[in-house]
This record gives sequence, structure tokens and C-alpha cells, in this order.
Amino acid sequence: MVVIMESGADEAQIEAVIDRLNGFGFDVHRSSGVNQTVLGAVGVKPGFDKRHIEVLDGVAEVYRVTEPYKFASRSWKRENTTIDLGKVLIGGDDVVVMAGPCSVESEEQIETTAAAVAAAGATILRGGAFKPRSSPYSFQGLGESGLKMMRAAADRNGLLVVTEAMEVGHLGLVAEYADIIQIGARNMQNYSLLRELGTINRPVFLKRGLSATIEEWLMSAEYVLASGNTRVILCERGIRTFEPSTRNTLDLSAVPVVKAKTHLPVFVDPSHGVGIRNKVIPLARAAVAVGADGLMVEVHPNPDAALSDGPQSLFVDQFEDLMEQSRAIARVVGRRIAGPAEVTA
Amino acid sequence: MVVIMESGADEAQIEAVIDRLNGFGFDVHRSSGVNQTVLGAVGVKPGFDKRHIEVLDGVAEVYRVTEPYKFASRSWKRENTTIDLGKVLIGGDDVVVMAGPCSVESEEQIETTAAAVAAAGATILRGGAFKPRSSPYSFQGLGESGLKMMRAAADRNGLLVVTEAMEVGHLGLVAEYADIIQIGARNMQNYSLLRELGTINRPVFLKRGLSATIEEWLMSAEYVLASGNTRVILCERGIRTFEPSTRNTLDLSAVPVVKAKTHLPVFVDPSHGVGIRNKVIPLARAAVAVGADGLMVEVHPNPDAALSDGPQSLFVDQFEDLMEQSRAIARVVGRRIAGPAEVTA
Amino acid sequence: MVVIMESGADEAQIEAVIDRLNGFGFDVHRSSGVNQTVLGAVGVKPGFDKRHIEVLDGVAEVYRVTEPYKFASRSWKRENTTIDLGKVLIGGDDVVVMAGPCSVESEEQIETTAAAVAAAGATILRGGAFKPRSSPYSFQGLGESGLKMMRAAADRNGLLVVTEAMEVGHLGLVAEYADIIQIGARNMQNYSLLRELGTINRPVFLKRGLSATIEEWLMSAEYVLASGNTRVILCERGIRTFEPSTRNTLDLSAVPVVKAKTHLPVFVDPSHGVGIRNKVIPLARAAVAVGADGLMVEVHPNPDAALSDGPQSLFVDQFEDLMEQSRAIARVVGRRIAGPAEVTA
Amino acid sequence: MVVIMESGADEAQIEAVIDRLNGFGFDVHRSSGVNQTVLGAVGVKPGFDKRHIEVLDGVAEVYRVTEPYKFASRSWKRENTTIDLGKVLIGGDDVVVMAGPCSVESEEQIETTAAAVAAAGATILRGGAFKPRSSPYSFQGLGESGLKMMRAAADRNGLLVVTEAMEVGHLGLVAEYADIIQIGARNMQNYSLLRELGTINRPVFLKRGLSATIEEWLMSAEYVLASGNTRVILCERGIRTFEPSTRNTLDLSAVPVVKAKTHLPVFVDPSHGVGIRNKVIPLARAAVAVGADGLMVEVHPNPDAALSDGPQSLFVDQFEDLMEQSRAIARVVGRRIAGPAEVTA
Repeated sequence: MVVIMESGADEAQIEAVIDRLNGFGFDVHRSSGVNQTVLGAVGVKPGFDKRHIEVLDGVAEVYRVTEPYKFASRSWKRENTTIDLGKVLIGGDDVVVMAGPCSVESEEQIETTAAAVAAAGATILRGGAFKPRSSPYSFQGLGESGLKMMRAAADRNGLLVVTEAMEVGHLGLVAEYADIIQIGARNMQNYSLLRELGTINRPVFLKRGLSATIEEWLMSAEYVLASGNTRVILCERGIRTFEPSTRNTLDLSAVPVVKAKTHLPVFVDPSHGVGIRNKVIPLARAAVAVGADGLMVEVHPNPDAALSDGPQSLFVDQFEDLMEQSRAIARVVGRRIAGPAEVTA
Repeated sequence: MVVIMESGADEAQIEAVIDRLNGFGFDVHRSSGVNQTVLGAVGVKPGFDKRHIEVLDGVAEVYRVTEPYKFASRSWKRENTTIDLGKVLIGGDDVVVMAGPCSVESEEQIETTAAAVAAAGATILRGGAFKPRSSPYSFQGLGESGLKMMRAAADRNGLLVVTEAMEVGHLGLVAEYADIIQIGARNMQNYSLLRELGTINRPVFLKRGLSATIEEWLMSAEYVLASGNTRVILCERGIRTFEPSTRNTLDLSAVPVVKAKTHLPVFVDPSHGVGIRNKVIPLARAAVAVGADGLMVEVHPNPDAALSDGPQSLFVDQFEDLMEQSRAIARVVGRRIAGPAEVTA
Repeated sequence: MVVIMESGADEAQIEAVIDRLNGFGFDVHRSSGVNQTVLGAVGVKPGFDKRHIEVLDGVAEVYRVTEPYKFASRSWKRENTTIDLGKVLIGGDDVVVMAGPCSVESEEQIETTAAAVAAAGATILRGGAFKPRSSPYSFQGLGESGLKMMRAAADRNGLLVVTEAMEVGHLGLVAEYADIIQIGARNMQNYSLLRELGTINRPVFLKRGLSATIEEWLMSAEYVLASGNTRVILCERGIRTFEPSTRNTLDLSAVPVVKAKTHLPVFVDPSHGVGIRNKVIPLARAAVAVGADGLMVEVHPNPDAALSDGPQSLFVDQFEDLMEQSRAIARVVGRRIAGPAEVTA
Repeated sequence: MVVIMESGADEAQIEAVIDRLNGFGFDVHRSSGVNQTVLGAVGVKPGFDKRHIEVLDGVAEVYRVTEPYKFASRSWKRENTTIDLGKVLIGGDDVVVMAGPCSVESEEQIETTAAAVAAAGATILRGGAFKPRSSPYSFQGLGESGLKMMRAAADRNGLLVVTEAMEVGHLGLVAEYADIIQIGARNMQNYSLLRELGTINRPVFLKRGLSATIEEWLMSAEYVLASGNTRVILCERGIRTFEPSTRNTLDLSAVPVVKAKTHLPVFVDPSHGVGIRNKVIPLARAAVAVGADGLMVEVHPNPDAALSDGPQSLFVDQFEDLMEQSRAIARVVGRRIAGPAEVTA
């Protein structure tokens, strides 16, 4: 931590700050210039609230030197984390595509979708059984029966399953049916839930909160890593800005920024990022071009009849286009889309 | 709902939209102008996703006519909701002050604070036993023993208790000790938690999410109201913006806006809103001036030693100043600060 | 400037950074800890782009130690700047109210308004003759004839005049008629215009840009101060956020923040801040309560017929209420509303 | 315009609204449902301020039906606007690359850069002679001598010239030397400047303002189009959000959104969008992938010595990589990078 004293700070103030830093367990290096004194506070104190020092008399600014997270950091682990799920390796050279409906609605719907996305080259089936909905009057998901339907459809079509858990009480149940557990954007700072993920032997798909900075997002990953679960996948899905034309503003710059700061894989969800069907394909292309390790895309066999997020779900033929275009972009950036369709292509 | 067709929309497109609206159960009024056709879709469908219509061919814009919430709305209930807690009436003429430390840290700390804030005129003791912390390495609260300490300190000093519940599993426990249950900003869209509040016979203090629009905040209130708990208190505590000088940007305009839209009481938390001690008093004055029904303020007997949020906690003598100044402002707006200090003044 | 090296930075990288800093003219203090080296770069380089150092190998973070502005800073000038305009002293104990229509529309309109706001206690007449309008099809102002009408109406009613100049070519003309020259939010970073203000012997009323940080706002003030014009008044008028219920989000926290950083007076414009008439009075009260040195308020004798911003303009009787309530709040914070109405009260 | 009356609005209120709409020249269609009355106001009133109606008693919401711009709209002109500059066609199948330094600094610097970017396949030379700088102490550009150097370097290397004009007084001068006149983000709402562009026989390169919505950006384009200059090129360059890791947040969703709303070409400037050199290439790839009609990129022969924006300027060999990768991406989306390098490839 670096403490910049005000130019007019007197000796007593400087010493008071040094005392206080020592009291918190920091070693202090003092450097006095013509106009200003700068104090370097050495010592690793994850979670230290620097405002403790900012409020002291004579202090102008305080900067944290070390990142507030440890296990999530590239300085902790230089090489990329890869997650081996047998059929699919996440975080490696392949770009992995997760696709499926917003919500599981029926056996027929999830089977049709699973078959279609598998045929087009997706390797993981997405779909919600417990849905966080902003209205209490909206469809809230089928619960366990939805999980069962999704598992069966995935198995029949050679797919893995990613689905969301919304509360601690559901974790065990979801882990029974899912290969990857999704933590939604609204729960990115639900710390009770994050802490419990250490007890579950499943990779975690952690969406960025709607107004989370990249640092806060990595701090939430740190919760999971510190709990003992080292298999975390990040997913950018749009942030809240002043622009009303799109549901959110997809922050594609976040991909190279995050990849420099952390060793964890980073996906992009263009469906939630833009919120309207006919903009999903160009943003999926851009996500692959910018370097994402994977995509999560909403696809529905009949979007007009979908019980949730139909308007941002792709028709099956649109998803086929998306896969074809993503495959071509992936080649340009020296990668390939995971999965059998590519193998046979 | 109002559907604006594009100026070039043809008859087939218009009829397709009308059919689709009928299919969703809406009656449709059609109004054709020289350049454009406008369709009025009548029927109450809370939670209807208007993007179902936006994606149809020939549709230019779709506007929802009715608010997405019902029980939270002033059109549902014209008169202000008041919450009678015996010693304190919330939402009436009095401005109610909740004060106390960020976290309960020890018996002595909470007792000293309770005595001090009671003497200064607060009527409700705040303090956290379960703390949502962005770092897994920060102090996470004392849990049940903290609740006990707070209850005892409040009782000894004639105060009520407000404290946060972070997960469904803690609700019963927290309700045992607290008079009001706080739902924090990070949990404003934790729908599992919101739904459970109907089962608890305690008023709910619902903080605005960091990036929640006023409409989303009222939708979260609707979850609680729809679950059967009609005693909801809203609290503005700052929103996330691009400005880095303050922890958040306190949105005081939200107070008159919310009071026009809903019958529920609205508080302001200037401590979290601004995040630094010496700005709390002017913003508390402004909050009372703008029409807030109450304040929530962080106070600590020794902020420098606080385990959380010390830098934004007031010293006791600063809190006394805050109360004195707020009392004077309250009089100007035709109100008074609740509590014995005022009575004897 | 403080440069934090990465924990793995080697000696060659550290020396390359030191060389580069020396090359820019900085003295460098080096402090090597167990894990990390921190470099303190001493030397005043206003406008230095710290990204020059951030891009070097082995650099983790770079922090600017000194503020980028000089004349605008409280460390340059400790005591408050006051601006003496004869009848009115800005930045002193009085809270100064500027009121009038958005645009000057006719002799009768401006005379009626001037008489009404003067009677209610305003001391400065506001009104636009050159209007920045987001649509090229909207009323663009009366130009010089508007300036003449406003000057005459102000003189007849004992008021001073504040009005906006939109371009360098109009500065001389506006200065002929106005006592204070307003620079609008959209021109806060029109540097050609700011630089010319040094040539004009008039105080400058500098509105905060819609998405300007407080630091950028003070940098724009620095342009004017550095050009030789030391009489700058700042005005908060709302920033752009994600919240759609109000035209902008009035950032009242900015008032105490700015007053700590600079010696310049700070006003608040609640009319633009909130954008809808019936919210203006509560926010004006809050602005006085938070410590503003003055208010700028839109008033129109017949808002329904106003050619611009009618919906946010107060009726005359509403403005009288605003003045009465502001007077009462001002007393609580140890100030008074400037002007004759107060004197006789 | 559509006016939604409150559910409790009475007949007198409804009639008052109708009268007022008629007074503004609108024809009114009335549609009364069980709970609510909806009024359709027909008539084209560009620039009409809908708050005139919102403030009336009994009005719940008012929606504008038509876009506030006309000439900028796809409904006014269905086919894409192309701008033929002889060597280069903007807005057609080719993706056009503008490259060069932030500022022109010397003859040698601009000549070296021009030669390098031309060799790599750029067709237009960018560079600033008049620079908008947030600090009055930063390098402000070489003025006319910079324009001369840039023109000469461009001519020697077969390039066109794009450069910024910051004020009305410079327009004639800039037009003498430039093929395209850039209007910077800070001047996007400098209406005096926009209006003058009709008098200049040069295409306009209009950057999006830092906090401008897409609608406001198109309104600024409308100013230029309405002034008689029909050759406008839009450029996305990042918007201001809460995320501090990047200088701005590049809004790539804006590209497909804008292309649906307008017929004008849309470029992307990844250098300003992300602000740090090693993130520029991935975002340039993403911009071509998402469908941009061109790129504007900062390149410097010696970025470490650049007088402005060096840290976001590419080294020449990085720019060569960018071109190679962009070419490959362009092919995937059925386009090609304009220029001789491609022709000979």
C-alpha cells in the first residue's frame, strides 16, 4: 500500500500515520521529497480497507499495491487453468459452445433443442430449472423435474449440462444433475452461496454482475477458489450503462483485460449482452474474435412460444449460422470450435 | 401495451401482430393514421415480456402501459403505508433515525453505541451480525452471538433492532432477535430470499441495489408484498456511476420520485451513499430536506478500531451534531425527528 | 507519481523504468520490499500521461500523486474565492439565487419573469439567447435581440444577468450584455472556448458536463484560471446514469467533495438535474442543505407556452415557495438567501 | 405520440389533454379501455418536447412514436450511404482503415508513419493538428504547419487525410488540407460547429460523445445532414461506464444497432475505446467481426516518444499484425480491407 501525504502535512501527522500502519501490521518505508512525503506500507493484508488510512489527518491519497485477490491472480498461477470434463476441455485451444433454451419447459422442448444444438456442434446444453425473474408473476422454472429432463436430453445427445443454482439449499440437487453449476449475474455477490461452492465437486460458471467491476468479479471468483473449488469459469454477459438501445452493454474489452489478470477461462454470453435476437450473431463473432474461450447462447426450437427470454433466443437455423461463422472466426485466431461437428468438417 | 407499427408496415404484418396479441390474451384496439398504425393491447399481464412483440415484422416500438408492479403502486393504495412498531411509527410525520455500527463486534462496543445513539435521539439500533463482504478474507460478522448482544443492548436502551439477513436459512434466527429485517443492496434481486419474507412476521427494510433502477427496486418490493408481507420500507443508499470521488452516488432525486410511485416509506443511508465520514452530515441534512421518512447512519464509539466500514462511521459527537442539524431541517419541512430527545426538547 | 513494479519484475526492468522516468525529468526514489519494488517519481509535470510508464515491462500500476490542476486547488489557495458583483457577493455567507426562463422569448415574457423573480428574492436573472438544442428543428434562441431584452428587464428590476455563450465568436457580444458568462454542460470540454475566457472581464459560470468526473470539471476550471480569469463559479446540474426516471441524476455529494478540493464557489441547478417541475423544490431544499453557495432555477410566467424546457420550469408561485423554503433551510446551515427580500423579512 | 392516461383520470382531464395536443397541431385518436384511456397524437413535430404533455394532470406516460431525426433514418433512405473519395469508397463492401499518430509532431514523424501505414495497407492518414486536451498544460498541436506536413506526407504516400476541426474558425483552414473533417467526441454536441459543416464540401467523421446515447449521436448527425452536408461517417470510440480497467468501454453492440437505424457508414476506433496498446488488436478484430465499415487506429513510429496518447498507439509492426488479422476476419464476414495491399495479396 502506498500512502501519499498532503504537501502541507507536518511531522506529527506523518508519524501518526506510520504508527497506525504499524498497528495494522505493516512495515513502513518512508520517502520524503521536497514537497511531499510518500509512505510505502509493506505486508500482505487481503481485504484491508484502505479508508482506515484515508481518513487520517494529512493523508492525501492511499493506493493499494497488491491485488485484493490471490488465488485468482496470474501472479499466483501463470499458466491458464484448464478444466477437463472428458468430452470437453475448457480453457484450452478449443472454443467451447454452450447452447440451449433460457428455461427448460417440457421434455419435448428440451429434447428438440438438445438434438439441434448437438447437431450444430455445441458440446454443452444450457437451460434453467430455477429461474431468477424480476417479476414474481413470471414463470419461475420447473425445478427438479426440469433438471431431470435436461439431464436425460443431454445424455441422449452426447452433451454436458450447465444450469443455474440460485440458493444454498438447491446446490446438492443441482449438482446431482449438472456437470457445471452456473451462478447468475444477480447472485455474483451472494457470498453465502459462493462459499458453499467449495463443498460441491463441480466446476462453477460465474457470470459477471450487472454493475460489477472486473476486480469485484475476480473477488467473487476468489471466494469460490478460497473455499477449495479451483474450477471456475468466468462469463461476461453485459454491464449496465446509460444506453437504452440494448438490454445491456456487452463489454468485450473485458475479455483481454481479464485474461491478463487471471488464469481462469473467460466466456461471453451475447444473448443476454444484447438482448435481441438479430444482434446475437454479430456479437458472437466479435466475442470469438476478441479471444473468448467459449460462448453461451440461447436457442429455442420455437422462440415465439418460449416462456422466458424468447425474444433473445435464436431459431435453430440461426444457431447453425452462428456456429458456422464462429468456426471461421476461430480459425483466424488460431483456435477451433470444440466438438464433433468440427472434427468431421 | 401500445404497439407502434413501422410506417411501411403492410396489412399482413399488422394482422399478424393483432393475432399474436390475441393469442397472448389481449384485446386489441387499432388506430390507423396517415403514416402509421398504432395498436392498443388491453389486458393485465404482469410480467409479460414485451420483446415477444418487438421481434415481429413491421413493429417499430412497443410500450408497456401499466406498471409491472401492482401492490407496490400508488394506484393500488393511495394513502401512505405506515408501520407501527409501538415506540416508533414509520412512514408517518416523524423522521425516524436508525443508527449503530456497521458490524456488532463485542458486547461493550454495541452497548456503548446503543447508549450513545439513544441519548442522541435515535430510536432504532442498526448493526450487522451476518456481513456480506466483497473479500472472503474480511471479518464476516459474529453470527447469532452478535444478534444476542445487539438485542440486549437495544433493550437496555429502549431501542428497536434492525439487522440484515443474508440467506433463507438465517431468516428464522434473525427474526427471533430483530424488529425489522434488512435485505442488503447485494441481495435486492435474491428472489429466493425475497419470497421467503412472506413467512416472517417482521417489517422488511429493502435497500436499493447498486445498479437497480427505481422500477426494479419496486419490483423487488412487489415480491415481498406479493408473498404476503405488506410492511416494506425502502432505503436509497447510493448507485454506481462513473464518478470515483465517492463510494457511490447518492440519488436523492429518488426520494420524491419513489414517493410519487409508491405508498411505501423511503429512507436514506448517507453513510453507504458517500462512504467517507466527513461527507455524511451534509448528505443527511439533504436527505431530510428532500423528504426522506428516515435515516440509517453508521456510528461507532471508536471508528478507527472498527472491524468494518470504520472510515464511513461517525464518531459519537458527530452523530449528535447530525441529529441536531437533522432536527432543525425536519422542522422546516413540517416534520420532526422521532423519539424522546425531540419530545423533551 | 508512484510506480508499483510487478512482484516478478527483474532488475533490468526496474532500471529501464527508472531511466525512462529520469528521461521525463523526474527524480526517482526507490524502495524495495520483499516481494515488490515501489518507485517514487518526484517532480511536477502537469498533464503528464502516466500511461507512458504503465506500458513498460514489469510495471503493475502507476498512481499520480499530485492533482493535475494547480490554480483550482485548495492547496494553491486555502481561503474561499469570493466574487464581488456590487449588489451580490458570490461564494460568501449568502446563498445566491439565479432565476429566469430557459430561453428569452419576448420582451413581455422576460420582463414579467424578471419582475416576479426579483420580487421573490432572486438577485440574478438567468435566460438563454443562444441555445444549445439537441434537435436542429428546435427553437435556437433570439440571439442579440434576446440579450438586449434580458439586460433591459434585469436593469428595470435591479437584477444582474447570467447567460450562456456557445462559441468564441459570441463571447464579446455576450460580455457586452451579461454580468456573468455561462458555459453550458455540453461545452465544458470545448477547450477553444475555455481558453478565450481569459480575454473577457466577466466571471464564468461553468456547468459540469453530463459525464464529467469532478476531476475533469476542475481541469476545465483550470483552463479558465490558467488563461487569466480567476473568477470561476462551478455548477452541478446532474450527471448521466442508468436511471431513466429523472432526466439526469443530481449528484449532491459533489458539493461537499468539490468544496474540499477547490476554493471556488459551487452552485446547484435542480431544474436540469431532475428535469420535471414537481421535483425541483425538494431538490432545491436539499441543495441548500448540503451546502451549495447558490441555486440556478428555471422559472416561466407561463411554462405551458415556453419555447424550451417548459416542463421543468416553475410557475411563479412555485418559485415563491422555493424561495421561502430555501430561506428557512439556509438559516439552519448558518447562511441566508442573498437579496432584498431577505433584508426586509 | 402516444399518451397513456392514468387509470383514475376523469373526463375533464382527458379533454384537457386532447385540447392541448390540438393546440400543438396534433390530430388525436382516442381509445378508451376498461381501465385506461390511450390517446394517439398524429402529426410530425420533430423536436417536440413530450414533457409538455407529461406534466398535465391525469397523464401517466407519453411515448414518442416517430424517431426525432429524419434524414439520418433508414426509413428516409433505405440503401446504405456510400462516400466516394476516388481512391477509397466508404460504406461499401470494403473495410477502410484510417491510421496515423494521435498528433502530428514533425515532418519526419508524419512521413515515417504515413509510409509505414500505407505499406501495411491503410488508405487514409489520421493525425491531429488541433488537439482537444483535458489539461491546459499538455501539447495542443502544431496548427496549420501540422496540417501542411500531414497533407504532404499523405500525398507522397498515396493516402487521403482525416483530421479534426475543433472550432468554427478553423473549418475553412482544415478543409483546405483534409479530405475528411473529424468532429471529436467532446464536440459531438457543439451545435455551432455542426451547423457550419453544411458550408464545407468535405465528408464529416463524427465521433460518438463519451456519454451520448445512440439516439443523441444520430441527432448530431441530423444537424450535419440538415445543414446540407449529406456525407457523414459515424465512429464508435467507447463510452463512459463505471469500469476503471479500460479508458472507456467500447460499445461494439452499437455497430449492428446503428446500422439498423441509419444508412450512414459506421467506423470503430479501438485505440480510444480501450486506451492501452496491447488491447487494441483484439478489439480491432472484434470490430471487423461485428460489422464495422472501417477502423481508425493510432500508430506511431516511436510511441514512447509521442507527445500525446503514445501509450495507446501501436508500434508499426503491431499495426502490420492488426492489418493481417483484420484482413482475415474481413474475409469471414464477406468483405475485404480496402487498398493496394489487399489487391496485390
